[in-house]
Amino acid sequence: MTTLWKERYSQRTQRMSRSVIRELLKLTTQPDVISFAGGLPAPELFPTEKCQEAACRVLQEHGAAALQYGPTEGFEPLRRFICDQMAEIGVKADPANIIITNGSQQALDLVGKILINPGDHILVEEPTYLGALQAWNAYQAEYVPVPCDDDGLRTDLLEAALRAGPKFMYVLPNFQNPGGTTLRLERRHELVRLSERYGVPIVEDDPYGALRYEGEHLSPLAALDAALHASAGLNGQGFVAGNVIYLGTLSKTLAPGLRLGWVLAPIEVVDRLVMAKQGADLHTGSFAQMVAYEVVRDGSLSEHIELIRRVYRERRDVMLAALEHYFPEGCSWTHPEGGLFLWARVPEWIDTSALLKDAVERRVAFVPGFAFYSDPSRGHNTMRLNFSNARPAEIEEGIRRLGDLLKKTIAKH
Amino acid sequence: MTTLWKERYSQRTQRMSRSVIRELLKLTTQPDVISFAGGLPAPELFPTEKCQEAACRVLQEHGAAALQYGPTEGFEPLRRFICDQMAEIGVKADPANIIITNGSQQALDLVGKILINPGDHILVEEPTYLGALQAWNAYQAEYVPVPCDDDGLRTDLLEAALRAGPKFMYVLPNFQNPGGTTLRLERRHELVRLSERYGVPIVEDDPYGALRYEGEHLSPLAALDAALHASAGLNGQGFVAGNVIYLGTLSKTLAPGLRLGWVLAPIEVVDRLVMAKQGADLHTGSFAQMVAYEVVRDGSLSEHIELIRRVYRERRDVMLAALEHYFPEGCSWTHPEGGLFLWARVPEWIDTSALLKDAVERRVAFVPGFAFYSDPSRGHNTMRLNFSNARPAEIEEGIRRLGDLLKKTIAKH
Repeated sequence: MTTLWKERYSQRTQRMSRSVIRELLKLTTQPDVISFAGGLPAPELFPTEKCQEAACRVLQEHGAAALQYGPTEGFEPLRRFICDQMAEIGVKADPANIIITNGSQQALDLVGKILINPGDHILVEEPTYLGALQAWNAYQAEYVPVPCDDDGLRTDLLEAALRAGPKFMYVLPNFQNPGGTTLRLERRHELVRLSERYGVPIVEDDPYGALRYEGEHLSPLAALDAALHASAGLNGQGFVAGNVIYLGTLSKTLAPGLRLGWVLAPIEVVDRLVMAKQGADLHTGSFAQMVAYEVVRDGSLSEHIELIRRVYRERRDVMLAALEHYFPEGCSWTHPEGGLFLWARVPEWIDTSALLKDAVERRVAFVPGFAFYSDPSRGHNTMRLNFSNARPAEIEEGIRRLGDLLKKTIAKH
Repeated sequence: MTTLWKERYSQRTQRMSRSVIRELLKLTTQPDVISFAGGLPAPELFPTEKCQEAACRVLQEHGAAALQYGPTEGFEPLRRFICDQMAEIGVKADPANIIITNGSQQALDLVGKILINPGDHILVEEPTYLGALQAWNAYQAEYVPVPCDDDGLRTDLLEAALRAGPKFMYVLPNFQNPGGTTLRLERRHELVRLSERYGVPIVEDDPYGALRYEGEHLSPLAALDAALHASAGLNGQGFVAGNVIYLGTLSKTLAPGLRLGWVLAPIEVVDRLVMAKQGADLHTGSFAQMVAYEVVRDGSLSEHIELIRRVYRERRDVMLAALEHYFPEGCSWTHPEGGLFLWARVPEWIDTSALLKDAVERRVAFVPGFAFYSDPSRGHNTMRLNFSNARPAEIEEGIRRLGDLLKKTIAKH
């Protein structure tokens, strides 16, 4: 059987690879595997009934619009709702500053499409979200990784990296994926100041910001950037300033299966994202957007988020206690104030990729940390653990299995 | 107000522009404008009630799966359904040959992403679908246009273009957008033979194939290619052969607001499309896919398509009769056997872009033909007319207004 395609793939395919996580998810769908691998929300918390009522109402009252083509920017009432949500966390914006995307992943792709030339350098946290690396590898990006500690990105190490002139900085300030760490407030201020001083803009990815389990809410970089410009008299209206593109999503607060995220950005950036999205898929599904809006319009989302926070907080606590109890000496882990993940470090000589094979045999799974490094030869003794998708008893049992495996591995050493 | 983005856009944004059609659609949403501009299905035919029942059932019975992340390839039962549909038009395939996309537009984008390097040449029909140009401009493609006549692509002019070594050929064999023409069967055979001889594969875009109003169904290129390889002993199983990537969609037969299309291709191509889609948006909405499957699984789609065909056939006939009656001498148009569009040519000295302004003043709209040319200095005296979205009386009135305008324009000349 001939195929004419083999020799024809674009250069960018050389940098593409299947996501470690998505391939892992396939392995771990057997019901007896306790998986800490995915980044899946707890499906038992989905507001299924509300979605059902909403879907019925939308099709009954606006069936023609819900099933028809729609504007590339997205469904106007949903964009307005997002503006209101953003205002609550201190970011003033107009619907013209918002474009709806198919989850944040498409936002990452479109941002890459309009900004990255082959060989451009992107400043990233190390470790960072592997979906961003995957999106931008397709645009042949190079990376300038800057280490994180328990307070997030090491802003004291930024200046050298900024002098190298990266295209933008990519930062997850809240409950970072994969680290679970939170960027401290002083560092946030420092970051937006450095952005302005070195002329390097910021892509702020905030999928988990609403899922905080302890401590006080910290201002997003977009709000601090607007305030900085307002105080400098550059931005009288206090609207979206220039230096931050903010990415948000309904995947963690409502449901990922609707594929709804958004970008908040200066209008001229939104304009280019709209052009890119027209070529990419015309628009995000009208039906999904209208159903989501119908679910959230009565203001009940914040109540639903309260429920999620209660449940995930307990799961985080169970995981932290189990780690304390079952993991051997020589291991350490982060204490996330929110989000879905924590990050564990095992003894230097253990390779978590190799460990994963034994773990799956014991019916427990995680993501080996190397997947979150732009240089995959790094992070070999780390792992990301998700605590949102398993129930407390499973979390305890899964961590027990992993702890046992680590103890046996160490004993054999 | 500062912005750091201005100097930072990628080279590919220089080739991006807002779609003429999508911007036109905004102008023409005033209810008193009769618009032949969009490519919108008739919303009054949407199976709204069936969708409503389906949405309820899906959320009741499979709520957790419908609202959760899903596989990048798409919802397996929907892929299986698509295989059955494809078998009916002579293309044998396995679900492994199928990836679900957000409408065909995303299929065009992903195909561009995995195949096109900057400067690569793509052989296109002239005129061709402007959404394909828009998707591939973002990958900095160049084009080799080959003219069409009333029987579709002029295969007699192909060889010179093929010798130039284009990356692939992009062909819409059925009721072409914008031309409304159908590629004759002998030309289809000739096309797949030439593809094999010159080693240039084909991207076959078939959004309207099921919407035929007269004449006999003609085999898709994918089927002829498989047969050619089978007869040459290259493809024993009669499955998807090597040389054709086929793009299909539910937007015209079910509803565009669900954003559901698919690519049928050799497994190794699907594999790369999956990698590209992981980075682009992880997967197409689980809920939309499951609702669509729930609507079509009982086999009632073919009945629904019968209804669409009856209604659109009448609208096409009304438009053809109105053109005959109201358009002045010196104009000509195609007689589409199916699909949503016909293509009109006005006297050489008329510029349809300029004409559009006067037309909108008279509350009627169309798409100026230049938008469908890779070289936009061409096609200035052509226009695309959509007949699916307006009711018969509106079609007659709209064509009357356009005809009047043309007569006045000619009289003033």
